[in-house]
Amino acid sequence: MEVRKIVLIVCDGMSDRVVSSLEEKTPLEYAKTPNLDKLAMIGCTGVLDILSPGIPPGSDSAHLALFGYNPEKDYPGRGAIEALGANIHVNEGSLACRFNLSTVVEKNISEGVTLIVKDRRAGRISSEEAGKLIEYLQMKLDSFSGVKVKIIPNVEHRGILVLEGGELNGDVTDSDPHEVDSCVNKCEPLTNASIPKAAEHTAKIINEIVKSSYTLLKEHEINKSRVERGLPAANIILPRGAGVVKKVEPFIKVWGLKPACIAKLALYRGVARYVGMDVYDVPEATGTVNTNVEAKFKKAVELLKEYDFVFIHIKGTDSASHDRKPLEKVNMIEKIDSAFKIIMDKVVTPGKAVVAVTSDHSTSSELGIHIGDPPALVIYAPDIIADDVKQFNERAVLKGGLGRVKGVDLMKILLNYACRAMEYGLKPSRESRVYRSTECSPLVI
Amino acid sequence: MEVRKIVLIVCDGMSDRVVSSLEEKTPLEYAKTPNLDKLAMIGCTGVLDILSPGIPPGSDSAHLALFGYNPEKDYPGRGAIEALGANIHVNEGSLACRFNLSTVVEKNISEGVTLIVKDRRAGRISSEEAGKLIEYLQMKLDSFSGVKVKIIPNVEHRGILVLEGGELNGDVTDSDPHEVDSCVNKCEPLTNASIPKAAEHTAKIINEIVKSSYTLLKEHEINKSRVERGLPAANIILPRGAGVVKKVEPFIKVWGLKPACIAKLALYRGVARYVGMDVYDVPEATGTVNTNVEAKFKKAVELLKEYDFVFIHIKGTDSASHDRKPLEKVNMIEKIDSAFKIIMDKVVTPGKAVVAVTSDHSTSSELGIHIGDPPALVIYAPDIIADDVKQFNERAVLKGGLGRVKGVDLMKILLNYACRAMEYGLKPSRESRVYRSTECSPLVI
Repeated sequence: MEVRKIVLIVCDGMSDRVVSSLEEKTPLEYAKTPNLDKLAMIGCTGVLDILSPGIPPGSDSAHLALFGYNPEKDYPGRGAIEALGANIHVNEGSLACRFNLSTVVEKNISEGVTLIVKDRRAGRISSEEAGKLIEYLQMKLDSFSGVKVKIIPNVEHRGILVLEGGELNGDVTDSDPHEVDSCVNKCEPLTNASIPKAAEHTAKIINEIVKSSYTLLKEHEINKSRVERGLPAANIILPRGAGVVKKVEPFIKVWGLKPACIAKLALYRGVARYVGMDVYDVPEATGTVNTNVEAKFKKAVELLKEYDFVFIHIKGTDSASHDRKPLEKVNMIEKIDSAFKIIMDKVVTPGKAVVAVTSDHSTSSELGIHIGDPPALVIYAPDIIADDVKQFNERAVLKGGLGRVKGVDLMKILLNYACRAMEYGLKPSRESRVYRSTECSPLVI
Repeated sequence: MEVRKIVLIVCDGMSDRVVSSLEEKTPLEYAKTPNLDKLAMIGCTGVLDILSPGIPPGSDSAHLALFGYNPEKDYPGRGAIEALGANIHVNEGSLACRFNLSTVVEKNISEGVTLIVKDRRAGRISSEEAGKLIEYLQMKLDSFSGVKVKIIPNVEHRGILVLEGGELNGDVTDSDPHEVDSCVNKCEPLTNASIPKAAEHTAKIINEIVKSSYTLLKEHEINKSRVERGLPAANIILPRGAGVVKKVEPFIKVWGLKPACIAKLALYRGVARYVGMDVYDVPEATGTVNTNVEAKFKKAVELLKEYDFVFIHIKGTDSASHDRKPLEKVNMIEKIDSAFKIIMDKVVTPGKAVVAVTSDHSTSSELGIHIGDPPALVIYAPDIIADDVKQFNERAVLKGGLGRVKGVDLMKILLNYACRAMEYGLKPSRESRVYRSTECSPLVI
């Protein structure tokens, strides 16, 4: 039997709610999408509870679920994923956080002096200046209470904080309050921390680092110069998304598929690397609404020769939503649809592969946030039973034949349509009870 | 971003099956419900597996699930809930049962003499007489095998039995056979009791109390007088619904919502108190089909000023079903619909809140029992994607856009539509990873 290859296209945050400025339609309803509608017509549709009904996923946990991993078990925290995405090596067992170089001012409160966040990105400080400030911090702060501290610059205001040694735990709150004019949050163990003592220890070290970063950075020459130039001082680092780095079973072992990823941004490249995908980029891709989607789809067609599974990530739909620009989102969707003709012509029409299009989460382009509404999903396979749905949008797919399925089940469904799913109970190989494997261990007589 | 408040209206046992005397329609289909239909038209609908497909919920476990608690983990047994509903304080770790004062007669069987239940409510004995009998029992029975016994009167034939001290377990059968002309059931540990030894111990004590209650009550003056007056003797107490009282995380901590409950009957008030809701009543409410639904909805509108979450319980639909009166149920549904105009005008039209209408379980008005069919659900939010469903009834919502969701997920879905759901992976506060919190613990430098 001929097995099929799989193409998974994730249009980040594409699904939405109704938007009043779009005649009470969603951006996907409002946009003209003849190619995606064609796929809906010949395929089967539904909605995807990425994590669980009502829960707004983060992009990292969402992609883990879409790749068939259980985030409750396998999510290593955003810091670890970002580090992987930036190609920063972090040892297993180390704790990694993302951080921003931010701008804070002092404020007197009854307990003493606290710090109020005025700019979470320190005026989007250049990578050059940020690099120097972080290098200085690293020089001054190399260990705390026997824990080795690594402070690593990423692009612009972004960086990775790594703690190594001793028992560490990622179940601590973020220092970053995620909102301006809020105070810097005291890092604390979560009430349901998995290892409470280790979480307490971790929180203490993070608080010391945050406080020291302020003491060290506020007097730095670069910040003096920034203030003179009328720019916000990058006078603190604010960690968030702590997690202990761990390893998961690689995608090829879990699903028996050789996987490739086409994505521009670090986070998505990080999740893909975390599960062991080969990560590709196309020079024309930008990770914004100006990206060249056609180039990505062409690359996917090319990679399908070598790989069994090609994942394509497109970010612009989410960025437009966070910027609360529904019309920009509509345009981005139409651009994706137009480019999607390549996939229709080269993959769908020849009928050799399974093609799925969905979002990693819904993003409201009115509210500017991730929402827990299940995104629209369409799956095409040559022998799939098409439902009655003739358009690809959130409202039309509510009547879809796939119904309401869970994100973590998507891979199993795709594997099935790819004729690769193994019958439950069979045990031809010691590695997997999920996918058909032709491997065998020869019995020697 | 503006968050929304939430109104949850539970019409007890409203969903049903087809009824032959109603032209093979369900009572909700048969009833004229222009206001609820309007909500279905502008909202999104589906069905709710309150506990699990096919399982008929009890009203107490059903409400726990609707409030987002897992009954498998958090259900403390009916006795504990009823005690809370009657404002009877029971210490954590104690075992509580409901009991009825009942009427039994002796019967010889091969093993000896047993007791046959003739009236489970002892002719609905007055609270005054019941109180005296229970006071007498309490005086005579204050402890068994080192376990302190509390026998507390409630309204009419109802009471609460509390055991305190030693290791107790609620996994025991009911003494009450739940049917007349059946014998009093010997309380026994369930075969899958969580702590078998404690369950055995508990069952033994309950059997001793039941036997002693018969010995003590059958000779009591009040019963002699009742028999003389031609009334059934209240000559035994029959415990049921044993459970060890425990504490759960309060609703406000779980969901970040300040909650209020409007309910008349003890059970619902008990579940609401158990999860830490403020419980309100309206004088015009009766807990029967004669209740004043309008008064409840007006109270809800008023409470929405102070509370984030208002739960309204309406009982009449269930009572009419248990009484096997489909037409009375239809009338009750029409009364609810007519009163619902208040919610439409004051809550839905201003577009400031999320409104959900459902049942805690389906009740068959032909069979007179709770059934495991998933009740109809409708949710309205200002930016929700409306499905094609234009009527609110069990048949119409089968095509609803929410599909088939689980009771325990409802709160997460409502939180999401209220723009209060937190993105998975963010950790701004130590208390919750579920709802957005503006609380912060200021870092003091």
